Amino acid sequence: MPLRKVAISQAQFERSPDQDADIFTADMIGHDEGAPVTIGFGRYGPHQELNETMLVDDVMMVIAGHLTVTGGNGSVTAGPGEVVHMPKGERIQIRSHEHGATTAYVTYPHWKDAR
Amino acid sequence: MPLRKVAISQAQFERSPDQDADIFTADMIGHDEGAPVTIGFGRYGPHQELNETMLVDDVMMVIAGHLTVTGGNGSVTAGPGEVVHMPKGERIQIRSHEHGATTAYVTYPHWKDAR
Repeated sequence: MPLRKVAISQAQFERSPDQDADIFTADMIGHDEGAPVTIGFGRYGPHQELNETMLVDDVMMVIAGHLTVTGGNGSVTAGPGEVVHMPKGERIQIRSHEHGATTAYVTYPHWKDAR
Repeated sequence: MPLRKVAISQAQFERSPDQDADIFTADMIGHDEGAPVTIGFGRYGPHQELNETMLVDDVMMVIAGHLTVTGGNGSVTAGPGEVVHMPKGERIQIRSHEHGATTAYVTYPHWKDAR
């Protein structure tokens, strides 16, 4: 497995599964590359909402825009350069703000395998 | 383990171990919090260099500045919003440019446990 850089300009976004909001994911490095984590990018349209029970640990880094994430112990709002840890088992809601958001994520283990 | 946001403003940086460059790390969430990954922030002064054999898989997201990472298969240069995967076992060199850099990282497993 080689050293690799990934950039959002290379991302091929797909709609996040099992929901119809304007929320898209693009896995860049993961299972197929032999990595123990999945690395990808996320894109949220303005004022979108995603509700999910975490099947994996997901670390989300905000690149642009803002997201409010609500879990069992309250809400956090993250902007560029900030990082949100969504632990496995947590019931979470992610809401984008007026300008949407782009993110990078790292999941352990691979989120698509866990579905 | 609760949902949590981490920001670089909360980081308490320490010099990256076993080297004397102006390169600092701040673990934010990890072993002690029961997470399967370590999440932290990195800070690089201008024109610094780190040489290391990766003991864990390390995903580095550039928040500000630029870093050039060299591995066995060549070099990549990453700027804000770009992500570099440094696989376990890879011998790597990280070099900062004239303005230094700040990063967020996610390691699997915990990098401090692997040392």
